[in-house]
Amino acid sequence: MEPTIQTIKEAHSRIKSYIHKTPVLTCKTFDQLINAELFFKCENFQKVGAFKMRGAANAVFSLTEEEAQKGVASHSSGNHAAALALAAHHRGIKAYIVMPKNSPKIKKDAVAGYGAEIILCDSTLSAREAGLDEVVQKTGATFIHPYNDYHVIAGQGTAALELCNEVNNLDVLITPVGGGGLLSGTLIAAQSLLSDASVFAGEPFLADDAWQSVQTGNIVPPKPPITVADGLRTALGNKTFPIIKNYVQEIIRVSEEEIVSAMHLIWERMKIVIEPSAAVPFAAVLSRKELFINKRVGIILSGGNVDLLKLPWL
Amino acid sequence: MEPTIQTIKEAHSRIKSYIHKTPVLTCKTFDQLINAELFFKCENFQKVGAFKMRGAANAVFSLTEEEAQKGVASHSSGNHAAALALAAHHRGIKAYIVMPKNSPKIKKDAVAGYGAEIILCDSTLSAREAGLDEVVQKTGATFIHPYNDYHVIAGQGTAALELCNEVNNLDVLITPVGGGGLLSGTLIAAQSLLSDASVFAGEPFLADDAWQSVQTGNIVPPKPPITVADGLRTALGNKTFPIIKNYVQEIIRVSEEEIVSAMHLIWERMKIVIEPSAAVPFAAVLSRKELFINKRVGIILSGGNVDLLKLPWL
Repeated sequence: MEPTIQTIKEAHSRIKSYIHKTPVLTCKTFDQLINAELFFKCENFQKVGAFKMRGAANAVFSLTEEEAQKGVASHSSGNHAAALALAAHHRGIKAYIVMPKNSPKIKKDAVAGYGAEIILCDSTLSAREAGLDEVVQKTGATFIHPYNDYHVIAGQGTAALELCNEVNNLDVLITPVGGGGLLSGTLIAAQSLLSDASVFAGEPFLADDAWQSVQTGNIVPPKPPITVADGLRTALGNKTFPIIKNYVQEIIRVSEEEIVSAMHLIWERMKIVIEPSAAVPFAAVLSRKELFINKRVGIILSGGNVDLLKLPWL
Repeated sequence: MEPTIQTIKEAHSRIKSYIHKTPVLTCKTFDQLINAELFFKCENFQKVGAFKMRGAANAVFSLTEEEAQKGVASHSSGNHAAALALAAHHRGIKAYIVMPKNSPKIKKDAVAGYGAEIILCDSTLSAREAGLDEVVQKTGATFIHPYNDYHVIAGQGTAALELCNEVNNLDVLITPVGGGGLLSGTLIAAQSLLSDASVFAGEPFLADDAWQSVQTGNIVPPKPPITVADGLRTALGNKTFPIIKNYVQEIIRVSEEEIVSAMHLIWERMKIVIEPSAAVPFAAVLSRKELFINKRVGIILSGGNVDLLKLPWL
């Protein structure tokens, strides 16, 4: 059943001892630049370095005891894999993560470090799905999708819940959009928590399948994975798309240059490490200042996992 | 007169509306690594990106009205210059900053952006001192030394004051040491605020003049400016040295590799941007774990101004 503000509040009670209540930072220079009040919800400081911990924890702790005993599974090489592994560790159950053989060692180590069992496969999507099917059949583990899952969506909505509880009278919220888990959860939260429920999203032009989906009314498949915002290369799902289509104010598209420039500005001025995907909403605010003037704007910085040897401005 | 805890508390009241009360962050991974509880006081989030704002603000707001009307002056191309410029701006007075012609444009722009008047000179120390003498003679401005000044020392001590007010029962504090302003202020604060008043400092082997000064009992001149920790290349002053000699527990020296590795670890795990000098105390804790086991350790992260194009691990 589609989450509600009540579901999100329940999710928050369920997961709050497994997540960080991340800080909200402000930056006077940016406020002056936009002529607005910006409040940055720092999910880069979240466990495993990304908001994904919220959704994974809610999914894992929503399982029945019987389901839980068989473990959880997913195929991912990104933040969701690490988050699911850590959430399963907290519940004391097994996590099976199907990962491409060519995944960076640092990502395999992170997942293995939380005690998950890694199943290596070829790097095609079909090989990953086959690997996942096999492990689920063999173990009876529950597949936890990275975003197309109502428990995951409700969990991601807790970031907006915390932000609105901490900062009064926000006018708008803005998040990135990839598969749409964070955006969907934020939209549902905002229906109850913001007076005019105005939620924007930022998306790279090079991965604007969500924008196209909203324009056309149908889920558009993902584009070739070339944007620097590597967390946003996935398509919407059939659970996230209807929520987004119904409620999103506008999806603002930004260029690669705008993403890299916004990321650099945040590192330079706010002194925090964020990943390219996390810079997309701020890039959107910078590119469409007129929408945000004199408003109180909540910006969700989605994560901080970046290869410090390969910074995009170098 | 040498500052006391009372002077530091007065400094805090004087400057608190011009500085950020910076957050204290923790990192479970690091606690497990050291087997201690570490509390990082994030002066990288301070105004102008460094603790230097505290000392500069206290010096500027301690001037009499008559002194203030003639302005303040210093020669610096670093964080003190920006801090002095901003503090003077807050008081509505002039700041004259003597800077080498070859200073990076970004540093000149920062100082000019706060409304200071920049006097360019050759890059030798003698040219900088001559330039400063000239501007002081011409304008009657008060020279604010970056560290060898009791108002500056008291101001820097407010970081430890805030940290000890926020985190109960700290066992030890550790700061970097360059000219000794931050360390001196911290030592004075710790005499009253920590039960065993145990304060360490970290210093690069390649700039270990403070360590040598404490060993020999005399101020040793600065070493060639080659350490990556560019904020720590200065020698102690005749106001900071006696305080350090009397009270410091130990100055722990670290290699360049240890500094860069500690800096990288903090970026990677804590998701915050710190400058090389700010990594020195954590490098010291990592290299001498046995001193800190089972202790509650306050670490002052001194600043976050770093050229994002020239990261030391690249």
